[in-house]
Amino acid sequence: MKILTTCFLIASTQLCLSQRQDETTIRQIYDKALTEGQSYSMLDYLSNKIGSRLSGSPGAAAAVEWSKRAMQDASFDSVWLQPVMVPHWVRGQKEIGRILRTKRGEATTVNVCALGGSVGTGPDGITASIVEVKSFEELAKLGAAVQGKIVFFSRPMDPTKINTFAAYGGAVNQRSSGASEAAKYGAKAVLVRSMGSNLEDYPHTGGLRYAPNLAKIPAFAISTRHADMLSKLLVEEKEIQVYLESHCETLEDAPSFNVIGEIKGSEYKDEIIIIGGHLDSWDLGQGAHDDGAGCVQSIEVLRILRTMGYQPKRTIRAVMFMNEENGLRGGLKYAELATKNKEKHIAAIESDRGGFTPRGFTVSADTSTRKKIQSWRPLLEPYGLSDFSQEGGGADIGPLAQQGVALIGFLPDSQRYFSLHHTSEDTFDKVDKRELELGAASMAALVYLIDRYGLK
Amino acid sequence: MKILTTCFLIASTQLCLSQRQDETTIRQIYDKALTEGQSYSMLDYLSNKIGSRLSGSPGAAAAVEWSKRAMQDASFDSVWLQPVMVPHWVRGQKEIGRILRTKRGEATTVNVCALGGSVGTGPDGITASIVEVKSFEELAKLGAAVQGKIVFFSRPMDPTKINTFAAYGGAVNQRSSGASEAAKYGAKAVLVRSMGSNLEDYPHTGGLRYAPNLAKIPAFAISTRHADMLSKLLVEEKEIQVYLESHCETLEDAPSFNVIGEIKGSEYKDEIIIIGGHLDSWDLGQGAHDDGAGCVQSIEVLRILRTMGYQPKRTIRAVMFMNEENGLRGGLKYAELATKNKEKHIAAIESDRGGFTPRGFTVSADTSTRKKIQSWRPLLEPYGLSDFSQEGGGADIGPLAQQGVALIGFLPDSQRYFSLHHTSEDTFDKVDKRELELGAASMAALVYLIDRYGLK
Repeated sequence: MKILTTCFLIASTQLCLSQRQDETTIRQIYDKALTEGQSYSMLDYLSNKIGSRLSGSPGAAAAVEWSKRAMQDASFDSVWLQPVMVPHWVRGQKEIGRILRTKRGEATTVNVCALGGSVGTGPDGITASIVEVKSFEELAKLGAAVQGKIVFFSRPMDPTKINTFAAYGGAVNQRSSGASEAAKYGAKAVLVRSMGSNLEDYPHTGGLRYAPNLAKIPAFAISTRHADMLSKLLVEEKEIQVYLESHCETLEDAPSFNVIGEIKGSEYKDEIIIIGGHLDSWDLGQGAHDDGAGCVQSIEVLRILRTMGYQPKRTIRAVMFMNEENGLRGGLKYAELATKNKEKHIAAIESDRGGFTPRGFTVSADTSTRKKIQSWRPLLEPYGLSDFSQEGGGADIGPLAQQGVALIGFLPDSQRYFSLHHTSEDTFDKVDKRELELGAASMAALVYLIDRYGLK
Repeated sequence: MKILTTCFLIASTQLCLSQRQDETTIRQIYDKALTEGQSYSMLDYLSNKIGSRLSGSPGAAAAVEWSKRAMQDASFDSVWLQPVMVPHWVRGQKEIGRILRTKRGEATTVNVCALGGSVGTGPDGITASIVEVKSFEELAKLGAAVQGKIVFFSRPMDPTKINTFAAYGGAVNQRSSGASEAAKYGAKAVLVRSMGSNLEDYPHTGGLRYAPNLAKIPAFAISTRHADMLSKLLVEEKEIQVYLESHCETLEDAPSFNVIGEIKGSEYKDEIIIIGGHLDSWDLGQGAHDDGAGCVQSIEVLRILRTMGYQPKRTIRAVMFMNEENGLRGGLKYAELATKNKEKHIAAIESDRGGFTPRGFTVSADTSTRKKIQSWRPLLEPYGLSDFSQEGGGADIGPLAQQGVALIGFLPDSQRYFSLHHTSEDTFDKVDKRELELGAASMAALVYLIDRYGLK
């Protein structure tokens, strides 16, 4: 309505014609995505035929080949691989977790998995008393009292936060830094309540970072339901032992690739807009939402623009980043080469929050760029994109910040993400076709606007 | 931000204090729903223990008893049953559908179900040639050419409509009126492409209305995938026969009930705000989203306000309407008795679009009421409620329009609804806990605002 009113007021001016053209083009983009879209069938293949794609794994290698071929089949102007060495962590045999209530002679199996990057316990496992803490402050107060024990980090994601990413942000340091924090005081291992929104039976893996100069101790996630059970038991009886066994190990770095495809710009071919997701995934599920969705949506953006016959002024690239989950090597390599090759990126868009219904975009950029993007809201709101208020980009595009690139994150509905994230449940059947397609169209619409008007 | 700025400008005025209180109360409502909510466990029981609840069925009777007890357990001031006679249609044995390509001697089974309210074919079934049409206009042009044949209505829901309810609205007349339209020209039966957003293997049932003075012919839905297959076959060969068999029948009207619970108002107890969903469901799934979600959310609204110790000024009622799916008798009875008893309803809110992430509310009311509700947007937007632009209420509360009641529809995300609607797939596992809880909280927040400020 706002657009129409403006049009009447300044009838037949250039601006008005331009708005009409934008409305028409954006409508065409959505029509293409919803009637002839290929994002869903691409994701079906990536999830069900290739499956999990942890860096260095055969799945990751297959995904590199597949995405290269997918972009070639979609007739992009050029498609190439960007070599990058990646960490190569392997889980090995399935982990074992048992709560031992020795006084009662009871052993209860609990659902655990090793955190990504963790050292293994080896075949003998670790048996030790467990000490529960909710924060690093609480751990520091206990200090040497945790020596020789397993530290159980049990702080849940805050369910009252409407944005589940904020809840995740408030709990995830237990997973990423808990092992080294506990190692400071001589703990033998850590067990972390899974980063899950709800009570679930499956554990959530995810990366940890060992601090330099501290012992590397084995780290596990435990399902939220079993975490609650354990917390409850610890109220009843102080002395509980836990048995943990994992066989994971870190091998030599392995060769891998970012996969890049582009459509060359006509007027400002040196100005590059990238749209990407990460091709690697954790090993427990299929990486359907995280981040198969972002990958196929990124390919789909260029495919839609190409099949519409749209000739971009600027160069548009789809980038499948490798190794977001446990190293970010792909994102770092991409930025390194962009600098080395003196490439001028004007915008980087990442989709890495799942293939859910679009709500808006996050933007990390200077004020005038943010305002320019926000000024497009009337064109995008009819498609459900109404939230342009948050800052943020994405992990893989983060390293481009140094070059002053506007970083943009695709922002879908966040409610279901942390029921699936990094688990065996992140499978293709959890993806809704329309939700996925709307995401691809939303990103294509934004790419179109950036291409047409620039960001300055 | 807008609220804060206003607060600074008119610091320490009554209005500002009032806004603060609203913000605090709404925050408390969401906290309750997300940390101590019972909507999900209630829906688990209703879906998994009781299951489908077609009017007149044992499931519907069990749901009446269950919801009465649930409201009593939640200590509402009063809970009562409102008797209403309902249509009693039964599906009988599972339907059979076969495409017969007689020239080739091939028979292909297709997934069909009888439409609700349809007459059955009886055990001998119907075998006839099939004629495909996309609209009633096309049917009328064929006229007598469809005599003795089965009319296949194949117009899909328009996938380019972002609001799937608009797509549904554009296709559903084939289901609701197709049988009688085809009967005008002597057709033997109708087969309707399911009202589904995607290509699926299961058919969607749903109500039909036979026009008076026309033959009642059997009506079936066919899965969208098989509908497409049939359309394709009909391009290849004109003469295809179909075999259809159904055993459904309409029995005598049966006694049933609306179930009502209320919390009495303190200041204006004669002013009533109702919040409701429909307790009946189709028989193929569990009626989890349609409309178990709306029922448990409505009970949860009152339960949350009660457990918060909130004393409403006005009377707040949760209403479980019976028979929305195939008769609307519950909604009609409720409005009839409200008139007869000279009750003054100021607002009626219905949740009947599934238990998905909240986006806003639809409002059918006079301009000043609409504006008043829209003025609360800044209080609700932090919770993702940003769409207050559409008109609409809900089927069950529709009959209250005559009394000038403001009709309000809860508006969740619509993308997944028509993959489940009226099918075997509408089961509890398709409901996300947080999405459901956020819906209950959204409605409770709106009820709180209406209670506190009225609508005039």
